[in-house]
Amino acid sequence: MQGSFASEDTLNSVLDRLAEGRSEALERLFEFLAIQSISTDPAHHDACLEAAEWSAETLRELNFNARVEPTSGKPMVVAHWFAPETTPARSHVLFYGHYDVQPPDPLEEWTAPPFEAQIVEDAQYGKIIVARGASDDKGQVMTFIEACRAWLTAHATLPVDVTVLLEGEEESGSPSLAPFLAEYGEEMKADIALVCDTGQWDAETPAITAFLRGLAFSEITITGPSRDLHSGIYGGPACNPIRVLAEIVAGLHDGQGRVTLPRFYDDVREPSREQLEAWRDLGFDDGSFLGEVGLSQPAGETGLSVLEQLWSRPTVEVNSIIGGYTGPGTKTVIPVQATAKLSFRLVPNQDPGKILDSLHRFIEERLPTDAGVTYAGEGGSPAVGFDTEAPAFKAASRALQAEWGKPPVIVGCGASIPIVESFHTRLDMDALLVGFALEDDRIHSPNEKYNLTSFEKGARSWARILAELGDANVGT
Amino acid sequence: MQGSFASEDTLNSVLDRLAEGRSEALERLFEFLAIQSISTDPAHHDACLEAAEWSAETLRELNFNARVEPTSGKPMVVAHWFAPETTPARSHVLFYGHYDVQPPDPLEEWTAPPFEAQIVEDAQYGKIIVARGASDDKGQVMTFIEACRAWLTAHATLPVDVTVLLEGEEESGSPSLAPFLAEYGEEMKADIALVCDTGQWDAETPAITAFLRGLAFSEITITGPSRDLHSGIYGGPACNPIRVLAEIVAGLHDGQGRVTLPRFYDDVREPSREQLEAWRDLGFDDGSFLGEVGLSQPAGETGLSVLEQLWSRPTVEVNSIIGGYTGPGTKTVIPVQATAKLSFRLVPNQDPGKILDSLHRFIEERLPTDAGVTYAGEGGSPAVGFDTEAPAFKAASRALQAEWGKPPVIVGCGASIPIVESFHTRLDMDALLVGFALEDDRIHSPNEKYNLTSFEKGARSWARILAELGDANVGT
Repeated sequence: MQGSFASEDTLNSVLDRLAEGRSEALERLFEFLAIQSISTDPAHHDACLEAAEWSAETLRELNFNARVEPTSGKPMVVAHWFAPETTPARSHVLFYGHYDVQPPDPLEEWTAPPFEAQIVEDAQYGKIIVARGASDDKGQVMTFIEACRAWLTAHATLPVDVTVLLEGEEESGSPSLAPFLAEYGEEMKADIALVCDTGQWDAETPAITAFLRGLAFSEITITGPSRDLHSGIYGGPACNPIRVLAEIVAGLHDGQGRVTLPRFYDDVREPSREQLEAWRDLGFDDGSFLGEVGLSQPAGETGLSVLEQLWSRPTVEVNSIIGGYTGPGTKTVIPVQATAKLSFRLVPNQDPGKILDSLHRFIEERLPTDAGVTYAGEGGSPAVGFDTEAPAFKAASRALQAEWGKPPVIVGCGASIPIVESFHTRLDMDALLVGFALEDDRIHSPNEKYNLTSFEKGARSWARILAELGDANVGT
Repeated sequence: MQGSFASEDTLNSVLDRLAEGRSEALERLFEFLAIQSISTDPAHHDACLEAAEWSAETLRELNFNARVEPTSGKPMVVAHWFAPETTPARSHVLFYGHYDVQPPDPLEEWTAPPFEAQIVEDAQYGKIIVARGASDDKGQVMTFIEACRAWLTAHATLPVDVTVLLEGEEESGSPSLAPFLAEYGEEMKADIALVCDTGQWDAETPAITAFLRGLAFSEITITGPSRDLHSGIYGGPACNPIRVLAEIVAGLHDGQGRVTLPRFYDDVREPSREQLEAWRDLGFDDGSFLGEVGLSQPAGETGLSVLEQLWSRPTVEVNSIIGGYTGPGTKTVIPVQATAKLSFRLVPNQDPGKILDSLHRFIEERLPTDAGVTYAGEGGSPAVGFDTEAPAFKAASRALQAEWGKPPVIVGCGASIPIVESFHTRLDMDALLVGFALEDDRIHSPNEKYNLTSFEKGARSWARILAELGDANVGT
């Protein structure tokens, strides 16, 4: 191999290798998808371990120095590929992904078993891969690993030094991440992190994500009577925890869809006029974004477009609620308690801790004398934004343009990726967020899918990005 | 047997018989309590049939002409004991009870298995019977059947002709009752109905219930997006059915605890000044009523006492709510739907159908564009009130005074007994509501109990009531 990594000859032999290995790549992905690594469900703990071991073994095959590093929760997969010490100084990237997946329920809505991946012919997209984790995040992870495999097969080297970090608790709040980075931060530190847990702009247009909303979450339990009460005998005089909880949940928004917590918007920066115009120029279709999931009207803050809401505005959602007798038939009880899980999406500059404090005060001010409250499972991470003029960002843009025939759209993302915030604050390391998921991949829902083109062009895109990062020497 | 039924000699031999048969009576009750006849749960259908057969067989032993009459749901137990045709015209009573019970959950809060009845020593009451159904309604039913057994053993006759009707769907909305009464109304018609599904005033004071709140119920499901959405990607712009439902539930009451449905109070009659004074004279202790279940403040309409709320005011309660991912851990979804079960308690003159219509309009006016609503399991029955000067009412008062040494308190009941309303409107038959439950029997809750004195003095009370009814000849 001679000249630049991104030279046509050098790159083409990598891309040819990807083309030749298409069916083996799919087989490997399907093996990975068959492992039921649901981190949020303790019953699937062993499957999480299996997914970690599978990943490490796959990287070992590529001559990565890979290990499964235990934590107090699900283990981390850590793997390094470094060029021989005789090689001149070169860039070092940390690739991050996760091997855990969301629970597949409701199971009955899947058209095929969620852990038996299938290639299905889709009217819109042609071939798609249907399975839990196909898009979030196993499919995305494998685009990168397949790109590495192709480079190593074609040239017995990678354009940059690579560390791979796969976590197993991304879908359950990443509790082990902070302790892990506290212990192994030096080992993880690279010139830039590559994070694949994001999406394209549309099926034909790549994207780089430059803003991510943060997250704060809390499980609130409202307590009332000391035992379940017969609502005939007590209905009226007795405090009903479901009603108290409903009033709290309903009270979180005003008539304009704004969050009512005191000082909630204090630290929110309004997007600049240029920013808003750039988003408007994207021609995003609010109607079809909502129409695809059976909705028709933006339901959030009055007067704001969907993109403005998702990329620049904080929200609170109630993700679950439960209380009373929810079995078949009627049971006229006033229950002892009712529980809701809330999650806030935050924008840069908001502090998750302050938001949860404000939530606690808001609830406690609204509690009737006979109701109590407890909080569980609280946590969060701030939002982040990146410099779109940095060398790594420019290198990735060039690579994506070469693969897709048009420049990537610079986008925000409504969802949080706590690791990105951790890399930023703990390791002083920026991240390049590139992924090949589509908005309609049904991640976290039944029939999750990943387009076959996302998988294949995703791997080609990573092959090119590695080359451009190698040429750009982003570490210097 | 000679003279009046209520003469000392005649009655004493019945009461003696009850005393002699105490332990056999308990054994029979425990057999009945062991049958898991949870009507609301389809998995317990066979147990319901078993409870019906057990009841019919028990009545057959007493020479009742008993049968298990199928319905499209749980069967009815129908049994007659008529005096020989040569006997002069006499009163005929219909005794009504139910053999079904509430689900026992939450199971972990029971101190012993709910279907293995136990005699437990209670600090306040002495011996108590602990089991699901001990009070509601198997214990109460058996007080009457044991009274009949004692009469028949002592005198080979009953003071009145008796028809027994036990239903198996009282805890699940009594769907088969109307069709059954339409077909067998003539057979059920008697001079008066005896209904045991009510309580005493306190452990030393009997009561006759003269007012019963009615009931209307509905299970509301709010629908939103066509699939579960990731709240990061859609949170803000997407309509969240849990939030819509919480707003509806929270909107059902105003700041004064009044129900906000339009025209909800239109048909409610205010209690008379005399009525309110009589209730005040009862010396009911709001604090200890609520304190016993861990509460301290009446939570209903501002400014009304507990008794006034329970006996004269309608309410709406949310008995359950569920939506989103309620399993362990977090799952940041916006779910496709959320469901709440609501029940209204109604007072005389309110029409359940009108109330449900008003609920539907209330909900539909509040639905955002992208939310839908469906209703399930709707039904109800109006409230009722009885003439406290009627001969049967007076006869029962005499009997209870004789047993308890003080006159019964005339009370209302916050809960509905739909059968009472059906007897009134369909069969033009008034009801005498006498029962021996106590407010703290924990019916519908874990560790349901029935005081042993409720069971034993209950049976004695029925023995006396049958005598007084026989003497009063309430049919003429």
